[in-house]
Amino acid sequence: MAHTRIGDLLKNGTVGTLISLQGWVRTKREGKGVGFLEVNDGSCLASIQVVVDLESLGDALRQVATGAAVQVAGCLVTSQGKGQRVEVQAQTLTLVGPADAETYPLQKKRHSFEFLREIAHLRPRTNSFGAVFRVRNACAMAIHEFFQERGFLWVHTPLITTSDCEGAGERFQVTSLNLTQPGLPSTLDFAADFFGRPAYLTVSGQLEAEIMALAFTNVYTFGPTFRAENSNTSRHLAEFWMVEPEMAFCDLEGDADLAEAFLKHIFRAVLERCPEDMAFFQERISDRVLANAQTIIEQPFARITYTEAIAILEQSDRSFAFPVQWGMDLQSEHERFLAEVHFQRPVVVMDYPAGIKAFYMRLNDGDDPQRQTVRAMDILAPGIGEIVGGSQREERLEILEQRLESVGLHPADYWWYLDLRRFGSVPHAGFGLGFERLVQFMTGMGNIRDVIPFPRYPQNAEF
Amino acid sequence: MAHTRIGDLLKNGTVGTLISLQGWVRTKREGKGVGFLEVNDGSCLASIQVVVDLESLGDALRQVATGAAVQVAGCLVTSQGKGQRVEVQAQTLTLVGPADAETYPLQKKRHSFEFLREIAHLRPRTNSFGAVFRVRNACAMAIHEFFQERGFLWVHTPLITTSDCEGAGERFQVTSLNLTQPGLPSTLDFAADFFGRPAYLTVSGQLEAEIMALAFTNVYTFGPTFRAENSNTSRHLAEFWMVEPEMAFCDLEGDADLAEAFLKHIFRAVLERCPEDMAFFQERISDRVLANAQTIIEQPFARITYTEAIAILEQSDRSFAFPVQWGMDLQSEHERFLAEVHFQRPVVVMDYPAGIKAFYMRLNDGDDPQRQTVRAMDILAPGIGEIVGGSQREERLEILEQRLESVGLHPADYWWYLDLRRFGSVPHAGFGLGFERLVQFMTGMGNIRDVIPFPRYPQNAEF
Repeated sequence: MAHTRIGDLLKNGTVGTLISLQGWVRTKREGKGVGFLEVNDGSCLASIQVVVDLESLGDALRQVATGAAVQVAGCLVTSQGKGQRVEVQAQTLTLVGPADAETYPLQKKRHSFEFLREIAHLRPRTNSFGAVFRVRNACAMAIHEFFQERGFLWVHTPLITTSDCEGAGERFQVTSLNLTQPGLPSTLDFAADFFGRPAYLTVSGQLEAEIMALAFTNVYTFGPTFRAENSNTSRHLAEFWMVEPEMAFCDLEGDADLAEAFLKHIFRAVLERCPEDMAFFQERISDRVLANAQTIIEQPFARITYTEAIAILEQSDRSFAFPVQWGMDLQSEHERFLAEVHFQRPVVVMDYPAGIKAFYMRLNDGDDPQRQTVRAMDILAPGIGEIVGGSQREERLEILEQRLESVGLHPADYWWYLDLRRFGSVPHAGFGLGFERLVQFMTGMGNIRDVIPFPRYPQNAEF
Repeated sequence: MAHTRIGDLLKNGTVGTLISLQGWVRTKREGKGVGFLEVNDGSCLASIQVVVDLESLGDALRQVATGAAVQVAGCLVTSQGKGQRVEVQAQTLTLVGPADAETYPLQKKRHSFEFLREIAHLRPRTNSFGAVFRVRNACAMAIHEFFQERGFLWVHTPLITTSDCEGAGERFQVTSLNLTQPGLPSTLDFAADFFGRPAYLTVSGQLEAEIMALAFTNVYTFGPTFRAENSNTSRHLAEFWMVEPEMAFCDLEGDADLAEAFLKHIFRAVLERCPEDMAFFQERISDRVLANAQTIIEQPFARITYTEAIAILEQSDRSFAFPVQWGMDLQSEHERFLAEVHFQRPVVVMDYPAGIKAFYMRLNDGDDPQRQTVRAMDILAPGIGEIVGGSQREERLEILEQRLESVGLHPADYWWYLDLRRFGSVPHAGFGLGFERLVQFMTGMGNIRDVIPFPRYPQNAEF
């Protein structure tokens, strides 16, 4: 008999039919003459209850403990009591792979997320991490779907690079030189390295995405990105996934329109496709999860300039730890005040001071020279702060060259990036969204290390 | 007026309507009283013809050269002659970004792929690379679709790792130590490195995918992978994308079933969604493209054991450069003979000698001890050779420990991989497919460097 996934059985299984299932035992208990197994196969949050007659299957049941893999054939019957529609009356119970009841680390009790991080190879078998990785998958596919429906191409930008998107950022170096041999020379010969010069892991695919946008009009990247920042926080990873759409013939307003439609689509899609997992997060992880999603979905985002944001902050009666002053970068406390207190909904802040933003952002014309701004935007959302950062790119060759030089970069290193402004340059814009931050926000998980299967952070690259 | 993508205009545009479009000029020519522009926006292979009245728009047209970005508004009319249904009678022509006719590297002539690799920032604007990257996108999305429809989760396995999937393989090292400073110590202190020990770029996500399969039953990875192999060939990249499904409660036959259904789906989907691009490859790149796709789609794959393959090769009247002998790895000439000459369709070869395959592959029971085999499979296709490699994994703890030791690896380094066999172990299997090899096969492109936007290979990490 073909095996049916447990999610299908619970949702669509017909009472009275014979079925077969496979999965892992979450709990086992014995009643009067019968035993009960909760079996889960990862297809949904819920486990299915399997009722085992002790007289006929008692021997088989005795070999089975929490964590064991089993195969069950039996009749799907209406569930007595509890929250489930159906359960299985077992006719056969086969132990596929045992688990030792004494040593299996995931016993039926609450484990701390810190402890579960130490056993990242087993934590996907818990309710919380099962839900996280199903939502992560649904979120990733909603991202593809959003862009593909709009005719954007998914482009794969390189991870190993010799260029430097931000002109700063702490990067990992990549080398094929043997660094673990004893007796290294005091100066390494990078001409003998794989790429003939020092190479690094990328911090952003944006510059290459611009290349592709200037051929295909609308593209997006969705792939891994790296930061060698020594940040031991609940919001930083050394390796994370990033989404970066890039659009030709598009200005900052069009960029903000797309980002707003994008966020609304993702949240709607995940709520629709993972209702059980999302209800679990709301109940067990954070009671703000559904409300946060609703603020994204239901209301149009507010839009203000950075200068207006500064005025709002100055006119508020809050005393901030970081004093408010035009030219400063907005701190978390300012971002939260704007989104959570003042607007009580997501807000797009545009036109930031040039001095605090990257070289490739388009300089606004007609500014007071003391208050030069660029076409940058950040989207701030209640409950998380900055969730999207984007900009219109500087498409004017001479101004871009001046900007590179003014921040101490060498235009010659950016020859191909400048070529894009030499040949068929167009207004273009894009944004970046940290995928794990999005999943963290969506699930309410407190630590970003718990929304990626195998987190990389200082001192940790296990698994 | 909203701008319409050129692909939409050519396919669905209504004759007689006013439209606006944006794109890049591929060619310009002048006739009697009129000029003609071919404008492309990357949405499809074809450019749209824009007819420009010289009397009213001659000044504007004079500023426009090949490579320039333009915006055109006008009337969609029935095309006179040639292969297109519609063309545009321009009412306005706006130069958005100029291109200098003298210096723009992509003039209207055939450029060699070698030359175009030097200008990888402009090659997406050519017919060939436009088609390649549209097919690449369609192929990538067909992969997601195939797995998602079957309830597989997309899982993101780590790229930076301290474990070594194959127990061999030339890997890139990743470090946050400053290697470019003068006066390096003769022994580097990896305790001070980011992860507290030497870390590398992954060569496969398989071991971590097994973790996820043993919680979610069916998963797949689709992400970048690295090899520091100094191979300057048309089939090797240092950075490439790989697809690796992994299925719990699955044996090698189930694995081969999935791989066959997978390949058929991908080829069918791309032929259906990119007919114009595929026709271009057939006509301009390789006249085997459509025939190769049909052999994948139309016939059931043959299935033989390695031992049978050796017998077929021995009984053939071919003289091979590498003599045929049980225990040897199949060479390209053998693979081609089997797929192209003997079977004339894709063939799955199963149960390879243990000595030439990786430690994690399941040992077959009951073999002659001199001819011990493992549950490995390769899929060989006419026109390409090996396209998929997979195996059923060794799920028995003791045998896996012995295998690790016999190949000189330390079981303690694989503690979590072994734990999967300690707790709820199940038969499981999966395969790997090199995404660029697939796209190369699909498009007929001769060099793998031409099917990824920014290829990485020895001495090259430009862009």
